[in-house]
Parts: sequence; C-alpha cells; structure tokens
Amino acid sequence: MIKSEEFFKSEIEDFEIGDAYNAIFEEAEGGDVGYYSLPEDKELVTRIEAFCLEKDLGSVENIVVIGIGGSSLGTKAIDRLLSLTSKRDESKTRRRNDKNLIFMENVDPNEIEENLKDVTLQNSIFIIISKSGGTIETTSSVKYLVERFELSFEDEAFRDHFVVITDPSSPLDQFATDFNLSVFHLPLNVGGRFSIFTPVGLLPLCMLGYDIGDLLGGAEDLKKSFFARKEDDMVKKAHFYAKNSTQHPINVLFSYSSAFKYFNEWFVQLWGESLGKISRDGENVGLTPIGIVGSVDQHSFLQLIIEGPRDKTVTMIKVNNFENGLKIPDITIPHLEKTNFINGSTFNTLINAQCDATMQSIKDQEVSLDLITIDRLTERSVGYMIFYYELLTSLAGYFLNVNTYNQPGVELGKVILKEKFEN
Amino acid sequence: MIKSEEFFKSEIEDFEIGDAYNAIFEEAEGGDVGYYSLPEDKELVTRIEAFCLEKDLGSVENIVVIGIGGSSLGTKAIDRLLSLTSKRDESKTRRRNDKNLIFMENVDPNEIEENLKDVTLQNSIFIIISKSGGTIETTSSVKYLVERFELSFEDEAFRDHFVVITDPSSPLDQFATDFNLSVFHLPLNVGGRFSIFTPVGLLPLCMLGYDIGDLLGGAEDLKKSFFARKEDDMVKKAHFYAKNSTQHPINVLFSYSSAFKYFNEWFVQLWGESLGKISRDGENVGLTPIGIVGSVDQHSFLQLIIEGPRDKTVTMIKVNNFENGLKIPDITIPHLEKTNFINGSTFNTLINAQCDATMQSIKDQEVSLDLITIDRLTERSVGYMIFYYELLTSLAGYFLNVNTYNQPGVELGKVILKEKFEN
Repeated sequence: MIKSEEFFKSEIEDFEIGDAYNAIFEEAEGGDVGYYSLPEDKELVTRIEAFCLEKDLGSVENIVVIGIGGSSLGTKAIDRLLSLTSKRDESKTRRRNDKNLIFMENVDPNEIEENLKDVTLQNSIFIIISKSGGTIETTSSVKYLVERFELSFEDEAFRDHFVVITDPSSPLDQFATDFNLSVFHLPLNVGGRFSIFTPVGLLPLCMLGYDIGDLLGGAEDLKKSFFARKEDDMVKKAHFYAKNSTQHPINVLFSYSSAFKYFNEWFVQLWGESLGKISRDGENVGLTPIGIVGSVDQHSFLQLIIEGPRDKTVTMIKVNNFENGLKIPDITIPHLEKTNFINGSTFNTLINAQCDATMQSIKDQEVSLDLITIDRLTERSVGYMIFYYELLTSLAGYFLNVNTYNQPGVELGKVILKEKFEN
Repeated sequence: MIKSEEFFKSEIEDFEIGDAYNAIFEEAEGGDVGYYSLPEDKELVTRIEAFCLEKDLGSVENIVVIGIGGSSLGTKAIDRLLSLTSKRDESKTRRRNDKNLIFMENVDPNEIEENLKDVTLQNSIFIIISKSGGTIETTSSVKYLVERFELSFEDEAFRDHFVVITDPSSPLDQFATDFNLSVFHLPLNVGGRFSIFTPVGLLPLCMLGYDIGDLLGGAEDLKKSFFARKEDDMVKKAHFYAKNSTQHPINVLFSYSSAFKYFNEWFVQLWGESLGKISRDGENVGLTPIGIVGSVDQHSFLQLIIEGPRDKTVTMIKVNNFENGLKIPDITIPHLEKTNFINGSTFNTLINAQCDATMQSIKDQEVSLDLITIDRLTERSVGYMIFYYELLTSLAGYFLNVNTYNQPGVELGKVILKEKFEN
C-alpha cells in the first residue's frame, strides 16, 4: 500500500536501532504520551458514529470547526487528501458528502466575515475545540458567534448547534457541563498536534461521511508493524535527520499532488513544533520543515534545491493511482508540436513522470533523498501516512534528545499579550 | 504608508551602500533586466483598461488563468491581499467585482476537475500565459479545454474566450497570430517571477475590477525614492541577509493577516529561485524563504523560531488598519473569565497586539528581526510592497554575487521528462 525507499547512506549501528525501538516502546507504555494507543480505540469510533447518526445532520450544510493549530490542521489535511478522490469500489461516488468544512482559526476580521458569509445558525454545526478552553482565538470566535446569532448560553438552539471537544475538567468542559452541551473529551496525555485520531479529527471527519474506522485501521497497520520491530527504515531515517541536523537543518517534503497542500501544513507544525527545542543538553536544536507541492513548485522552489546550499534533505511523495483517467487529448497546437510527446497520456501519468524526472535531477546533485510511494489515497492509506509521520517525529525527537511533546517557547508571547491589554 | 524598522546590527560600510545603488542603477540602465522600468508603463495600463472595456465582461463569471509559477503566483497574491478589504472611500463596497479567479496550474487530474466544475465556455474568459509556450502544464491544460468544450482553433468562440500572454515571436505568439487571438506581449527582458507588473498580472487584475494604475503608482513611489538613493535601509537589509547566509540560511516572512497567504508563496518563489544559485565564484549559495501567517502560525512554527537553532532571520509584516470594525463582544463565558481581557476590543486590535507580543518574544531571543508596517491594504500599498521585495531580491542577488534572473537548475528535469516519454 505504501512503500518507502531511501537514497542516502545511514550510519546507524544495529544496537542503536534496537535502543530506539525500546525507547519508543517505553514511552508508549509509560503513559505520559498518549497518542500511541489511539489507533486501537474502536469504542470511540462507535461512539462518534452513533452521535453523528443521532444528531440527524441531513439539513446541515456547514461543519464549522472553531480551533487553531493542532485543533484544525489535521482535519483540514485529511479532508483535502480524500475529498477529491472517488471511492475504491469504482462506483465513482465521492468518499465524502457535500457539506462544507469551514475553519474559524485566525482572528483576521476580514477572513472571519468571508468565512461566515453563507453560514447561519440553522444550517450549521459548530465544533469548539480547545484543550484548556483558554485559547484566545477560539474563545473570541465563540463570543462573536453568540452575538452574531443573538444567542444566550441557555438557549436550546445553542445546545443543538454547538459541540465541545476539550480536556476533561478543563474550564471549557465545566462550561459545557453547566449548559448541557454535547462534549467529547481529549485524553490528557495527547497534545494538540498529535490529536488527529481523537474526536478533534474524528468527529468532523465522520460528519463529512468519511470512514473513520478505516482511518484508524491504517494507523493500526503501521503500529503493529512498528511494534513488531519491522520498520528499521523509519528508525534509520529519523537517525539520519537528527544526526545531520547541523549540516542539513532543512527537511523538504515534496508531494506530487495538490491533495497534499494541507498535509504539508500539518507536517510543518508536527515537525517544527515537536523538534525545535532546547535539548536536554541545553542546546537550541531542531529541524526546519518545508512543504511544497509538485509539479507546481518545480516552478518556484526546485531551483534552490538543485543549485542552492547543500543544507536540505528532500522527501518526495508520489501517489500511484489518482483514480482519475483524465487524458491530455491528441491535439496538436500549431507551432507547439514539441509538446506533443505527452499527447494521449493521462494527467496521472504526466504528474508521476514529472515526479520521477524531478527526483532524478535532485539525485544527480547528491542531495539526501527518499521517496514515499502511496498506491492510492484512501482512508486506510491516509491513516497510515499520518501515523508514519507521528512515529517518525517521535523517533527524531528521541535522537535529538528533546521533549517532543511540549511547546514552552510559545508561552511567553501569551503572557506579553495579556499584559498589553491589562496595562 | 509603509514603514520599515530593523532590529539587527548592519555592518555595511558607506561606500558599499553606494556601490550597491550603482550596481542596481547600472543593471536598470543596461537593458538586460527589464522589470525596473515596468512601473512607468502608463500606456500599458491604458491599453489593458481599454481592452477590458471593449471585451464586455458583463456576463463573464470566471477568469481562468492557465499558467504556472511566475504566471500565476503574483496575480493570486495581489487578489488575496485586496479581495477582502473594502474601498478607501468608506463606501464599504469591495475593491473587486464578483467574478471568480481560477487558476489551472497543477496537472493533478482531480484538482483540474474540481476547478472546472462550474466553468463553461460561455461564462468564462481563459488567459493562456507562457513566455515560450512550451510549458508542458500549460499546453496540456489548453488541449484539455479545447477537447472539453469541443472547440477547434478556427472557431470564433475560441477567439472570443481565449487570450494569450507570451513573448513576442514565441511559438505561442505565432500560434495566436495564425488564429487571430488577442495577444499581449511580455517584454523579453522580464522573467516570469518578476512579471507581475506586465499583462501577466495586470490583465486578470483589471478584469477583476482593481485599479491597476494605482498598483503601478505604488511601485513607482518606491522606485523614485530608491533611485534617489533614499532607501539605505533596504540596502542594509539585503547586505545583512547575504553576508549572513551561512549563519542564517533561512529567512522567515511572518505576516499578520490571512490576506498574505499567497503573497508569502509569491515571495518564496521570488527569493528562492532568484538567489539559490551557483555563484560567480562557483559556490552553491542561496537563502531559504519561509512564509507563515499570524496569528495562526504562532500555533505551529513559532516554537521552532523561539527555541530552535539560531539559523533564521524573521521579518514581521503588520497591517495597521484592516478597515473592519468587527468586535469581540463583551460576553463572559462562565469558567473562562480569564479570556475577558480582550472583550470589547476589535479583532483588528487583537491580531495587531498578537503581532506585537510575538515580536517581543522573538526579540528577547536575539533572533535577527525586522518589521514592515503597512497602514492599509490598497492597490497603492500593495504595488509598493511587491516592488519592495523585487528590489530587495535584486540587492540580495548583487551581494551574493549570483545571476538573480535565470533558473538553470530546473532545465535538467524537463529534459529527463521528455526522454521518459520518448524512449
């Protein structure tokens, strides 16, 4: 389903591979890091599916997610990966229903107005997501909506159209309890950027009609294989990135399909925020993630990879089967006969040939390179990919000797912000 | 209108500043680099405005730009910067009409279908943009459209709905001449990523109702000031980036408004592709651009800036006036009283306070930092900003001792692609 090939020379010793597996197994069993156990939570899938059925979403046109960072990026990534492809069963219906997925993230007032222009209380479900409830962007959006729809927290309409996802016993949870809102809890030991397989991702994705059981199934496939010590390539790759973090501080993810646009953004948060840390040795360490999309970014970023400083690694992602037979017709444009070599091929063939050609041209420059090939984009393969990058992040964090799961560097700004208003 | 402040220590000598001005003036007068003279081309503005009037675009719902890289990024950037804000005259009408701006860039077949779902020949104008005409993505899209709409090149409908922008005498130009299409020419000495002030950007932006004369006017404002040697800060900044390219290989543009999403992408191409080169000294040099948006990316990338390696510079962009008075209502969410400090403020105030707070927290880390403040987003200020980054790129290229205007590194991939199909 998914194949990984590395074109760089790993210098890891066998015992180091074993140590890395052991460190991850220990972390998974220790209980402080909860994301490892999410793929098996079949009971959660059942509960969310039952909730969506019972909620009767027939007349709902908009699923509005009020959340930022880890509360929005994963859902956006998965919806984009899957929304354009048709179902496996050849019936050619889409995987997803026609509801709009809207995010209230940024507090840019012009964007807020643009996003809400077709949103009414009656045609929408609002999902408020915040671990603590204290996220200023999220609470400000909620307050704005309450005023816009002339609601009070006691109204039945508020209960009918707002759902909360938060940590158990958080202030937001207490609020939801007081006013009888539907609540889903986040496990306390799962951080925002690792929360896609909690209700944070599963609830909106289920409302859109995706098979969330399959999503977890894909993650579980990889988990089983990894915990059976069958994924040495992942360990080698994380080791290579971490040990070369000074020489190659930049990791480029070059995905050959527009479907990866938001997956790239999800990866940027996961990789950047998890690994950019003061290490246990007191050093400023980290790896800078960059996500680009082919073939478009052959026309923007490729030149820098090919001729710029040798400070980058590149991972290419290729999708074998776009489930779309659209062809470049056998038409000759007079004076442009030299473009005819592609006539009669599918666009699928063209974009993959571009991926191969670009990869060859990067390889020729002796840039550290690897390739991930996905057979087709389905809930199962996407679940696998997401968990692949989560595990890879944990491994890289182990080798960099950092706490992969906190984000102390962003707290100061929040304190300064509050002071600005209080003084 | 636009203010720039630097919080790093420049070590440039006065004579080096003078030399840099002289090098740019020489380049501008030499004739090989044409973008410098675009802001004065008032005749082009008149011609494009006349064309749009004559074309009678009343029934046109979609402006479809068929182009990639430099042929699409600038137009997308400017439309996004201006589409959400209202006009200066307080009439609160938008700057732009309601036509959709659609790009056929990538050859991802699922994206092509998604993009075209509401596009018919009758309700759309198609602008084919390619310097040579040989861009495989662009010709493939044209062939696909011709088949989809059952057109032949001789049809009047083809002439009515397709416009071409290309180099004079290019194969695409010859094609357009043969079939009597409307054509606008690109100056031969203006490369794709510097082409936004040619018909590449001006034609679609004019069709959308923007004041393209004002856009050029803003660019001209900066040009006059720069050519009067009044922009030493720009020279110092470019010098600082270039001379510290090994210590700080990554330049982050942190824009505090969702309006900058595509401006960031335009900047990434301009900076990455212009500066990532084998220098005249035979070295692989370059600077890696990263564009992020606040406050969203406080929740994804900020941690890496604050605690990660000191390999980055940061430029923050702040918009004083969003022309939008949307407020955070004075509502208390029980249990979340600690978020009340923001109640009664506008979202405009909140996002700018977040920008200031984040800037302070970055400054405390002694990361090299500068701030660009824009009073409001108008055609004029946007034209200024675009030209600011073009000039800054030319200056950085001068200090890095590279050819800023070519892109030899991307040619090999195109050759390999063709071979893949011919063998």
